[in-house]
Amino acid sequence: MYTLYFAPGTCALASHIALADSGLPYEVKRLNFAEGEQRSEAYLKINPKGRVPALVTDKGALSETVAILAFIAQAAPLAKLAPLDDPFLFARMQAFNAYLSSTVHVAHAHGRRGTRWADEPSSHADMLRKVPQTMGECFRLIEDDFLAGPYVLGEQYSVADPYLFTIAGWLEGDKVDIAAFPRVQAHYERMKARPAVQKALAEEKAA
Amino acid sequence: MYTLYFAPGTCALASHIALADSGLPYEVKRLNFAEGEQRSEAYLKINPKGRVPALVTDKGALSETVAILAFIAQAAPLAKLAPLDDPFLFARMQAFNAYLSSTVHVAHAHGRRGTRWADEPSSHADMLRKVPQTMGECFRLIEDDFLAGPYVLGEQYSVADPYLFTIAGWLEGDKVDIAAFPRVQAHYERMKARPAVQKALAEEKAA
Repeated sequence: MYTLYFAPGTCALASHIALADSGLPYEVKRLNFAEGEQRSEAYLKINPKGRVPALVTDKGALSETVAILAFIAQAAPLAKLAPLDDPFLFARMQAFNAYLSSTVHVAHAHGRRGTRWADEPSSHADMLRKVPQTMGECFRLIEDDFLAGPYVLGEQYSVADPYLFTIAGWLEGDKVDIAAFPRVQAHYERMKARPAVQKALAEEKAA
Repeated sequence: MYTLYFAPGTCALASHIALADSGLPYEVKRLNFAEGEQRSEAYLKINPKGRVPALVTDKGALSETVAILAFIAQAAPLAKLAPLDDPFLFARMQAFNAYLSSTVHVAHAHGRRGTRWADEPSSHADMLRKVPQTMGECFRLIEDDFLAGPYVLGEQYSVADPYLFTIAGWLEGDKVDIAAFPRVQAHYERMKARPAVQKALAEEKAA
């Protein structure tokens, strides 16, 4: 049994969808961010960073979406959630996920988490103003260069797809019109129709 | 033959050391950042992000340190640069590398690359002031929770080690005293003594 710690509206959704895709037995536990539960002593033992997602396995806990997604794919090889037999294509998938994690998610976080990197309210307002530009630039690259289509890697679905779906879902709040990126938008709609996505979203609501 | 594109003082050093460790045939090509070569039309065909590192293979180009490091480990299994037969430990390694990439490198980048996320000079100054704090917090977590020792994963050397070495090398410029983190410091000195590290540093200078 795997246990995924999540909060609604976070990148933990990507790992949640991958679990739903995988066929692995799992449960989800919701952290109450408003009450600072991610900083509680109990949770910091699971993830000392105080962030989500964290995936508890029988060998210990894992953090970082990039690592958790690849782990789920490797733990459920029959679900074919990654090109496990092709190191180059696997690396391409990892590069896409790492870009989402270290550049796109970071660009987004400057809208509401500016206190991570600066102290003055004027800096936070400045960062927030720039989010539509930086997120727009990231998705321009994804649209033109990285999304092979119909899935991230092409014909083969992989754990990169729920991750892109999750972050594309933030565009509206970041004041970026997804319609400017028709291939991303088609991918988003294609993902929304998948049973695993609907299952994960329903479980988030129910948790 | 693998070709690594790098610039001195960047995170590309981690992939360079891993190549030196791997025994794979490689060459390095230095980009002149001062002349904006990373934004040249020729380089953008290799890496549309205009960043380093990029690793050109016979199947195409890869970007993102997290992906390149794991790829090198998988391409040279005999060099034992990753726990390739243990998906959980592999995920632990990937989680460590993803943390360096998406949190620690990002904290560092706010010192000199603040224009990525804000437009006002006052915001950039604010970000720069906060770097010693954020980098210090990251290395506190690495020291206390993530560096098993003597290597990142414990007794087993992996591609996480050159990545930690590379970013620990930025601490002095970020006004963080590495001596506050004795296990990180010992790791840094241990790494500096390795032939592959010395080879990569010499090749950076000569390129």
